[in-house]
Amino acid sequence: MRSSLCETFGVEHPIFGFTPSEHVAAAISRAGGLGVLGCVRYNDPAELDAALSWMDENTDGRPYGVDIVMPAKVPTEGTPTDLSALIPPGHRAFVEQTLVKLGVPPLGEAANQAGVLGWLHSVARSHVDVSLEHRPALIANALGSPPADVIERAHAAGVPVAALAGKAEHAVRHVENGVDLVVAQGYEAGGHTGEIASMVLVPEVVDAVGDRVPVLAAGGIGSGRQVLAALALGATGVWMGSYWLTTAEYRLGGDQNALQRALVRAGSADTVRSRIYTGKPARLLRNRWTEAWSEPDAPEPLPMPLQNLLVGEAHQRMMRAGDPDVVAMPVGQIVGRMNEVRPVAEVMAALLAELEEARSRLDKVV
Amino acid sequence: MRSSLCETFGVEHPIFGFTPSEHVAAAISRAGGLGVLGCVRYNDPAELDAALSWMDENTDGRPYGVDIVMPAKVPTEGTPTDLSALIPPGHRAFVEQTLVKLGVPPLGEAANQAGVLGWLHSVARSHVDVSLEHRPALIANALGSPPADVIERAHAAGVPVAALAGKAEHAVRHVENGVDLVVAQGYEAGGHTGEIASMVLVPEVVDAVGDRVPVLAAGGIGSGRQVLAALALGATGVWMGSYWLTTAEYRLGGDQNALQRALVRAGSADTVRSRIYTGKPARLLRNRWTEAWSEPDAPEPLPMPLQNLLVGEAHQRMMRAGDPDVVAMPVGQIVGRMNEVRPVAEVMAALLAELEEARSRLDKVV
Repeated sequence: MRSSLCETFGVEHPIFGFTPSEHVAAAISRAGGLGVLGCVRYNDPAELDAALSWMDENTDGRPYGVDIVMPAKVPTEGTPTDLSALIPPGHRAFVEQTLVKLGVPPLGEAANQAGVLGWLHSVARSHVDVSLEHRPALIANALGSPPADVIERAHAAGVPVAALAGKAEHAVRHVENGVDLVVAQGYEAGGHTGEIASMVLVPEVVDAVGDRVPVLAAGGIGSGRQVLAALALGATGVWMGSYWLTTAEYRLGGDQNALQRALVRAGSADTVRSRIYTGKPARLLRNRWTEAWSEPDAPEPLPMPLQNLLVGEAHQRMMRAGDPDVVAMPVGQIVGRMNEVRPVAEVMAALLAELEEARSRLDKVV
Repeated sequence: MRSSLCETFGVEHPIFGFTPSEHVAAAISRAGGLGVLGCVRYNDPAELDAALSWMDENTDGRPYGVDIVMPAKVPTEGTPTDLSALIPPGHRAFVEQTLVKLGVPPLGEAANQAGVLGWLHSVARSHVDVSLEHRPALIANALGSPPADVIERAHAAGVPVAALAGKAEHAVRHVENGVDLVVAQGYEAGGHTGEIASMVLVPEVVDAVGDRVPVLAAGGIGSGRQVLAALALGATGVWMGSYWLTTAEYRLGGDQNALQRALVRAGSADTVRSRIYTGKPARLLRNRWTEAWSEPDAPEPLPMPLQNLLVGEAHQRMMRAGDPDVVAMPVGQIVGRMNEVRPVAEVMAALLAELEEARSRLDKVV
């Protein structure tokens, strides 16, 4: 693939790989793509700083990016303790009873009970500060356009900014806000996702932004045929997230074997789009935990950021429980194609080989 | 495009066009695709017979297909009157009150109050009988594998059989049942549709059926880029339905201007997947009618075939009312790209021109 993004970002392949693991992100960059580290799990800026220092040392000088979670409008915000007071006791009781019913043990004494705070604006802002002290080639924002001053600071540091869009009008707004790269994320994607599927969304976003910025296709991509289809739809490159979850480098603590076992055996129909992870619709692996939230006695999920505070500890408990039937994990419909655990370099090589093969086959048809 | 389907079906382009209008179907065949006439609206076999005779005369000797709606297992079935008795009075009252609230007048005296009976198995079977007296190049079934004896009769007459699939395992079952062509229909499609989007579904179905039968991609296709993407994903051709609804030849009675005005102005986010049309999940144009069914006071839709009997008259009333805000119309997310009313030949020419253009662009990238 020879895309304009190769020159802009200094990558071999216009394949952007989002992952919460610095080991996976670095491996993607080393394999010729752009590894993008998801920062949301770093409650402590010092931990993120250490992870990025490690990436600086372990990417053979190749570029990498970071992904933050930050709404354009700064929300009114309290401390985690203040916010916790807004969570109805009935919701807490439901979570506790469900975990007991599913056989998920409580956390031990050493547990970090704070949950994930990266959804809080102040914490996300610290991620920007820390990142800019390193050498990111990209700052992406999972919630759309970042705040104006963040875009300004990134540009002042020579760092392009990307934003995810689930609708063409969002993409246009991002461009007007100064975003340099739009990620058109279709319905089939893991995590936060809209209603419009990639086949329809990608050309719509490409047409809406015109030649002002390049567009990456996200959602449903995990094979060379799907990369080729994304390029056929007019994308300049692809953004893949879910597919790296079953790489050998993905080791985030907790029982990874249980998680990867759950992912490897799941089919494309085994996901559900639900508000239970963060308060906004996100596609998750379907299992006994997600099913419990769709029972008639389940409460309505709370708005962001309350829902994630509510379930943060539950996520940690499930991660440690090591039961493949009870995990909380955002993943796209591409999970049906995630059928073995392989090193990142092997995944990338297979993807590129299939791309060539698909390209040769297409030559015979069109 | 040079696909094996061109030879098998004697078409110029592997573009299959599903439509309830014999005028549109014939125009698709004349334009080099395979027009496939949806039979479900023909309550009287003689009417279908007349429509197919007209197509025999007006397709310049080119091939066409028919589409029936027939579950593999023959259901227990009563007369429409028997079945009507199973509809709860509360459901009838809701429909009537909603139509009054939306300002939809009652039907005049000449009205056909029977609604659409093609969902009944006996009626669908008459469609097969009538079709085989003409020269269909394909019998497609919108509900999966047709009953075994229907497949046998079609094959005895030299007519291949196609079946729609929303999951890979359905596609495999179709092939085992003797189906000759699988239509992999993604989440973004209009009408009956599953949860898995085309980007993920198409290669999954292609891999599952192997080289036993060719696969058509359906769902989200209305431009040359999307045709190219479908072929990149491994499909041997495409199946398009929604896109023909805004052709000049589409004139089915009722106020077509209101319907086409509603479609032309709708965006890709203006559809909803709901059971209110037939009892099974189908993607529809979102408007005041579909919204009424998602209000808290709305009843749960009934199972097939009762739901369609319940709303059949309402559909006719809305069609005649001529209000673009109140129409009952299955359509896919591609509606966002249906922005003008054009003749079929022009639609086809534009599609093929964009395909070439997309192909040239792709050549520069891969």
